[in-house]
Amino acid sequence: MVKPWQDTTLPAHVRAADLLARMTAEEKAAQLSSVWLGAETDSPEVAPGQHEYAVDSAVLDSLLPHGLGHLTRPFGTVPVEPAEGAARLAALQQRIRAGNRFGLPALAHEECLTGFTAWQATVFPTPLAWGATFDPALITEMAQSIGASMRAVGIHQGLAPVLDVVRDPRWGRTEESIGEDPYLVGTIGTAYVRGLEAAGIVATLKHFAAYSASRAARNHAPVSMGPRELADVILPPFEMALRDGGARSVMPAYNDIDGLPAHAHTELLTGLLREQWKFNGTVVSDYFGVSFLESNHRIADSAESAAFLTLAAGVDVELPSVRCFESAARLPEELLDRAALRVLEQKCELGLLDPDWEPVGGEVPIDLNPPQMQELARQVAQESVVLLANDSGVLPLADGLRIAVVGELADEEAAMLGCYTFPRHVGVHHPELCAGIEVPTFLQALRAEFPAAEFVADPAQADVCLAVVGDRSGLFGRGSSGEGCDAEDLELPYGQGALLDVTFGHEVPTVIVVLSGRPYALGRWADRAAAVVQAFFPGQEGGAAVAGVLGGRVEPSGRLPVGVPRSRGGSPAPYLAPPLGERNGASTVDPTALYPFGHGLSYTTFSWDTPRCENPELTTDGETTVKLKVRNTGDRPGTEVVQLYLHDPLGTVARPEVRLVGYARVPLDAGASAEVHATFPADLAAYTGADGRRVVEPGALELRISASSTHVHHTVPLSMTGPVREVGHERRMRCEIRVK
Amino acid sequence: MVKPWQDTTLPAHVRAADLLARMTAEEKAAQLSSVWLGAETDSPEVAPGQHEYAVDSAVLDSLLPHGLGHLTRPFGTVPVEPAEGAARLAALQQRIRAGNRFGLPALAHEECLTGFTAWQATVFPTPLAWGATFDPALITEMAQSIGASMRAVGIHQGLAPVLDVVRDPRWGRTEESIGEDPYLVGTIGTAYVRGLEAAGIVATLKHFAAYSASRAARNHAPVSMGPRELADVILPPFEMALRDGGARSVMPAYNDIDGLPAHAHTELLTGLLREQWKFNGTVVSDYFGVSFLESNHRIADSAESAAFLTLAAGVDVELPSVRCFESAARLPEELLDRAALRVLEQKCELGLLDPDWEPVGGEVPIDLNPPQMQELARQVAQESVVLLANDSGVLPLADGLRIAVVGELADEEAAMLGCYTFPRHVGVHHPELCAGIEVPTFLQALRAEFPAAEFVADPAQADVCLAVVGDRSGLFGRGSSGEGCDAEDLELPYGQGALLDVTFGHEVPTVIVVLSGRPYALGRWADRAAAVVQAFFPGQEGGAAVAGVLGGRVEPSGRLPVGVPRSRGGSPAPYLAPPLGERNGASTVDPTALYPFGHGLSYTTFSWDTPRCENPELTTDGETTVKLKVRNTGDRPGTEVVQLYLHDPLGTVARPEVRLVGYARVPLDAGASAEVHATFPADLAAYTGADGRRVVEPGALELRISASSTHVHHTVPLSMTGPVREVGHERRMRCEIRVK
Repeated sequence: MVKPWQDTTLPAHVRAADLLARMTAEEKAAQLSSVWLGAETDSPEVAPGQHEYAVDSAVLDSLLPHGLGHLTRPFGTVPVEPAEGAARLAALQQRIRAGNRFGLPALAHEECLTGFTAWQATVFPTPLAWGATFDPALITEMAQSIGASMRAVGIHQGLAPVLDVVRDPRWGRTEESIGEDPYLVGTIGTAYVRGLEAAGIVATLKHFAAYSASRAARNHAPVSMGPRELADVILPPFEMALRDGGARSVMPAYNDIDGLPAHAHTELLTGLLREQWKFNGTVVSDYFGVSFLESNHRIADSAESAAFLTLAAGVDVELPSVRCFESAARLPEELLDRAALRVLEQKCELGLLDPDWEPVGGEVPIDLNPPQMQELARQVAQESVVLLANDSGVLPLADGLRIAVVGELADEEAAMLGCYTFPRHVGVHHPELCAGIEVPTFLQALRAEFPAAEFVADPAQADVCLAVVGDRSGLFGRGSSGEGCDAEDLELPYGQGALLDVTFGHEVPTVIVVLSGRPYALGRWADRAAAVVQAFFPGQEGGAAVAGVLGGRVEPSGRLPVGVPRSRGGSPAPYLAPPLGERNGASTVDPTALYPFGHGLSYTTFSWDTPRCENPELTTDGETTVKLKVRNTGDRPGTEVVQLYLHDPLGTVARPEVRLVGYARVPLDAGASAEVHATFPADLAAYTGADGRRVVEPGALELRISASSTHVHHTVPLSMTGPVREVGHERRMRCEIRVK
Repeated sequence: MVKPWQDTTLPAHVRAADLLARMTAEEKAAQLSSVWLGAETDSPEVAPGQHEYAVDSAVLDSLLPHGLGHLTRPFGTVPVEPAEGAARLAALQQRIRAGNRFGLPALAHEECLTGFTAWQATVFPTPLAWGATFDPALITEMAQSIGASMRAVGIHQGLAPVLDVVRDPRWGRTEESIGEDPYLVGTIGTAYVRGLEAAGIVATLKHFAAYSASRAARNHAPVSMGPRELADVILPPFEMALRDGGARSVMPAYNDIDGLPAHAHTELLTGLLREQWKFNGTVVSDYFGVSFLESNHRIADSAESAAFLTLAAGVDVELPSVRCFESAARLPEELLDRAALRVLEQKCELGLLDPDWEPVGGEVPIDLNPPQMQELARQVAQESVVLLANDSGVLPLADGLRIAVVGELADEEAAMLGCYTFPRHVGVHHPELCAGIEVPTFLQALRAEFPAAEFVADPAQADVCLAVVGDRSGLFGRGSSGEGCDAEDLELPYGQGALLDVTFGHEVPTVIVVLSGRPYALGRWADRAAAVVQAFFPGQEGGAAVAGVLGGRVEPSGRLPVGVPRSRGGSPAPYLAPPLGERNGASTVDPTALYPFGHGLSYTTFSWDTPRCENPELTTDGETTVKLKVRNTGDRPGTEVVQLYLHDPLGTVARPEVRLVGYARVPLDAGASAEVHATFPADLAAYTGADGRRVVEPGALELRISASSTHVHHTVPLSMTGPVREVGHERRMRCEIRVK
C-alpha cells in the first residue's frame, strides 16, 4: 500500500509531514547530517580540519540504519572519472537506501562556484569576472549548463553562489564574489541562481551574512556592522536571489556580526529569512561552522550546546559530516521536527521520496566539458575582460610585431583559474594527473592569437612589451588569492611591483595585463602604461579571451565590478560611501579609485544623446521611464554598458553618494544606434532610515546616466511626491531596461 | 532687589530656571551660541573652515544685546602674552556683560589636550604618552595644574580629554587618544578629568562616540559598528569619566555610526547620556559639527534644519561660532528651553550669574610655565618612555662612547610635541615668534645627558648608533601625525624605513628610538636592533626623558598603550579581539603585534610570586581579592607594572581573548618587594550579551596576572556563581589595587 509520503500526487509538505510523523528522533536527526567519505587523513586536505570530519565505510555502516541527510562532495574530494564517480555515487545511494527502513537516499551536494568542481569539468571564469560582464542572461546560461552536468552525475545541490558584497578587496575570497555593488551582486547572483535552479539543482546562497566585511579583510575575523549597513548593503542580494531566483538553500557565514556568530543568529536565520522573507528551503551550515561555535567563537561549551544553538537559530543541516548534530535526537523535539521537515520537504521536491526514484549513472562516458560549455566559458571570459586604459591607442595590437612578454604568471595556469576550480582546489594535490581539461596559459594563447609575431626576450628590442602580473589562486596559503589567502595590502604580490618598476625603465610601450583575483594598486605605473587590461581569473578559455582583446578579435566590453585603487594602503575604500567616506577635507588620505567601479573602455566610441524622461515627477509608489539613444560613433563594432546610478541628496541618515540601480549592455555595430528604455520604480530609492524602517521618501532625486560610477554622461532630476512609504519584501528591486 | 537667579544661596537649577523664565526666545538662543574672534580671513587657519565662522567686532556688537553663551579660543587662535590675553578677555567679558540686560558674561573655552593651548604655556606629553605611564594619579596632578593655569587667565571650559579608544592607529588622532584598551582609556581619562574639574575647569569628553573607528582610519569617514561593540568598547571610558570623574560637558563626534551622525544621534545624546547616565551638564558641538549635517552628512537641507536636528537630539551649544543656531529662537520652545537651562545652570555653577562676579586678569605677569609644571611635564615624560627591546643589553649607555645619531627628527622640535600643543597648532603660523617655551630636541638633550660622549657622523666609526625615527605632528596635512594627518599604512613616514635599512647595513650596534604619534611597523629591523625605545610625543621635557632612559638616569617604566605592529599592512588589528580576530588557521595574514599592548621592559628584573586568592568562588554580585608579591631581583631600582587581564571562556557572543581589568605601578628599589592586593568585583566581568543586555554571568573565568597582554605570569581561575545579573550605570567599573 502506498503511504501518503510516497504518494506523488500529494504536495511535498504533506508528504514530508507524513514521513516525519513516522520517524523516531534518531531517524529525524539523521536527516540533519551529512558524511564526507574519502576525506580521511591519508587524503590531501581540501579544507583545514577535514580529517577530523572524515567518515570511513565502517562508521557509515553504523550510521545508515537511521538514514542519512546529505552526502558531502562525492566529486570534489579526490579526482574521479565522471562516469565512474556517477556509478560509485549511485551504488552508495543504493547502500544508503537499503540501510534505512524508509528506503530514503541522501541529498548529494557539491561545490560549483566556477563550474562543477569535478575532474574534467569545464572551468568557467571566477565570479568577479561574471560581475565584469554585466550580463545576467549569459550568467544564467552558464549556470544552467553547470547545473545540467551536475544533475547528470547524481548531484542535487550546489554550494554556490557567493553573494557577499566586496567591502575590502584584501579579502582572499574577493575572487569568489561578484562585486562591490549590491545591485550588481544581486542581479548577477540571481541570474546564476535561476540557471542552476532551472537545471534542477538546489542553489545555496552564501555566506549569510556580512562575511566579506571582516576586520582588515582577514578571513573569519569579526565583523563590525550595524543594522542599517546590513540591511542596505549586505542583505539585498540574498533577498533578490531568494525571491526572484528561487534559491532553495542558504548557508550561514563563519563570522560573527557585532559579536553574534551567523550560525547562531536567530534574528537573521529565522526572524528575517523565515518570517519576513518567507523562505521555506533549507539552511545548511558552512563546513565545520557548527563546531566553530564551541572551538572558535566560544559561545558553546560542548558539541551538544553548539548543536542546540544552531538548530534553535534556524540551521537545519550540519556539514560536512555529522559531529555536533550527533546529539540532535536529544534536543527539543520541536527544533528537531522543524529542521527535519525542511530537509524532507526538499528531498520530496527533488523526487527522493518517490517510490520509483533511482540514482542516475550507468557506466557510460559522461562529458563534463562538452563543446557547448566550452563555448559558454569562452563567451563569459570574453565579456569579462576590462580595458582599463588605452590612452596611447597602442591597442589593438597588429600581428607581426616584436613582442616582449615579462612576468612569470604569463605562462602559468594558476593565473587563469579561481580557487574553487577543480585544478586549483583538488588537482594541486594530484600532480600525477593531467588537468583533465585544456587550460592554455596567457602565453600559449598569445602565440595562437599572433602567429606572425616575434617574441623577443629583451623588452628593449621589442615594439611592445606585455607585462603580465597578478595572482596565483589557491586555498589557505597555497596562493596569493583565494579562500584563506588574504593580503595585508593591495601591493602586487610576489614582488611583481618591482618587476613593473624595472619594465617601465625601458623606453618600449608597455601594456600592463593583470590576471588576478582582486584589484591591485596600479597608481605607480598608470601614467606610464601604454594600456592596461584587467581580467579576473578568466577560466579555461581566459587566455584566448585576453589575447583576443589585445589583438582586437574580441571587442573589450567588461566593466569593473570593483574599483582599482591608486595606492596599496588605505583599505577598505569601497566606492559605496557617503561624502565623508570619499575624499574629504579632513583627511590626508584620498581613497579615490584609480579606475572606479563600472569603468571599462572600448576600441570604438559612443555618443549618448540627452535622455528624455516623460514623468520626472513621480509618487513614492510610482515609477518613471527614461529613454536614451546611444550611438556607436566609431568605425568598429563595440558594446557600451549603460549604467544608471541613483544620487539621493537628502535622507535621515548619511547615504552613499551614488549606487547602481540599473544597467544594460548595448552591443552596436559601427555607426549603429539603439534606444535604451529604463523604467525606474520609486521602490529602488528605498533605504533604511534613522528609525530602522525601510522607506521611500518624497523629495528630489537624481538619476545619473553614466559610463561608470564617476563618469556621468547625463543627469536626470526627479521629484518624488506623496507620503513617506514603508516597503518590505514585496518591493520592486529592479530597474527594467530594454534595448531596442 | 536681588532676584532669585542672583541669589547665591539658592541651588543652581533653581536660579537658572528663574533666569530662563525671564528671557525672550532670542536671549535663550544667544546662550546656545559662541563667537570666534580673531579667526578672520587674514588670520592663519587653525581649523579648516574657520574663516567662515569668524566674527568681527561689528558683528559682535549686533549680537550682544541678546547676550552670548560661549567665547571660542581666546588664547589658542593667535599668540598673545598671557597677562595681556587675560586682560583682553576680561575687557571683552565686561563688554559682553554691558551688552545684555542681565549683565551675563560668556563662558570661555579653550583647548587643553597636552596642556593649556596658549603661548608660553607648559607643553605636556601627548595623551598616548599618558596612557604609557599607567599612572592615573600623576595624570590627575598634571591636569589640575593645567586647569589652574587656565582659571588664572579667565578660561572656564577645556575641550579635553579625548576618550576615543584607538581602533586603527592609521588614524591621525591616535596621538590624541590614550590607548586601545577601554579600561586604560577610562581610568587615565577619568584621572585627567578629575584634575581639570578639581581646578574648577569644565572638562569636555570627546568625541562622543566611535570617531576612532572610522573606515580605514580616515578622519571623519563613516563608522560601521553595532550596538554591542559600542557598548563594550567605545562607551565605557565616557561613562567612567562622567560618573567617577565628574566631567560637566560632552562633545559629539564628527562621524556617523551606521549612517546616523553623532550630532543628530538622539539615542546617544539623550537616551543614553541623559536618561540612563543622568548627565546634566552641557553637550557642545564639535567645531562646525552642526553645519556638517547639511554640508557633509546631508541629513539636513538648511542651516535651520541642522539646528533643529541637533537641538532635538540633545546638543546644547553650537561651536565655534553661531551659524545654524541663529535660527534657534524660531525652533520649538521646549528644545530651546532645555538647552538654555543647561547652559545657564552651568554658568551659575561657575559663578557667572553671581552679582559680584568679576573677570580675572589684571596686567600682572602670569607664568603659564612655572617650575612645578615643568617638573610635572618631566615626570609624565619620564614615566611614558617605553623600552621595547634590549636583548643585547646595550642599554643603558655609558657616557664617553662614540655615538652616531641618524635621522633628521633627532634635531626637530616637531618630533616632541603633539598636534594640539600651541607651537604645532598655532605657533607654526607665526615663525617670527620664539616658541615661548624651551623645547630641547632629542639631540640637544642627548648632548646634555652624555657630556663626555663624542658624536660621530659616520655610524661605522661609532660604538653605538642611535637611529631616531618617527613623526612630525601637525594639523591637516602639515605633519605625518595629528588631526587630519592619517596614514595609508603603518610604514614609517618620510622614507625613514629606507634610512633604517641603510643604517642596519653597518655593523655597529644600533638602537631604534621612535618619537611618534602612532605605533609604526618595526618588524623589518626588530631582530637586528640592539635595542628599541618608543616615546609618544613626550612634550617639552621629552628629550631629556628619552636621553635619560638611554643613559640609565631614568629607569624605563612606560608600557605600550597600543601594540606595535610587525608589518605595515593588515590594519586594523587591535589587540581587543575574539579568537577569530587574532591569528587563525583560516587566514594567511597574522595580525599578532610585534610588541603587544602593555609591553615594556626595565633595566632590572622582577620575580612574581604565585598569587593567592582567598575566594576563587564568588557570586555574580560579589568580589574577590588576589594577593601577589613582586620583588625586584636585580641590582638597580625599577618599576614593574602589574596588569590584570580577564579571560572569559564562554559567553553568548564572541568576546575578546583578554581585556585589561586592573593595573598598578610598583616602584621597587633593588632587592625590595611589595604586596599587591587587587580587589576584582564581579561587575567587571559584565558584557553585552546576545540579547543586548549588559549582564554578569555565572561560570568559569580566568584572571591573568601579567606583565603585558600576552606575557602572563600567573593564571587565577575563578568560579562565578549565582544568577545572571543585569547591571547598569551603577555597576562597579574598577579593580581597586593597593600596593603595600
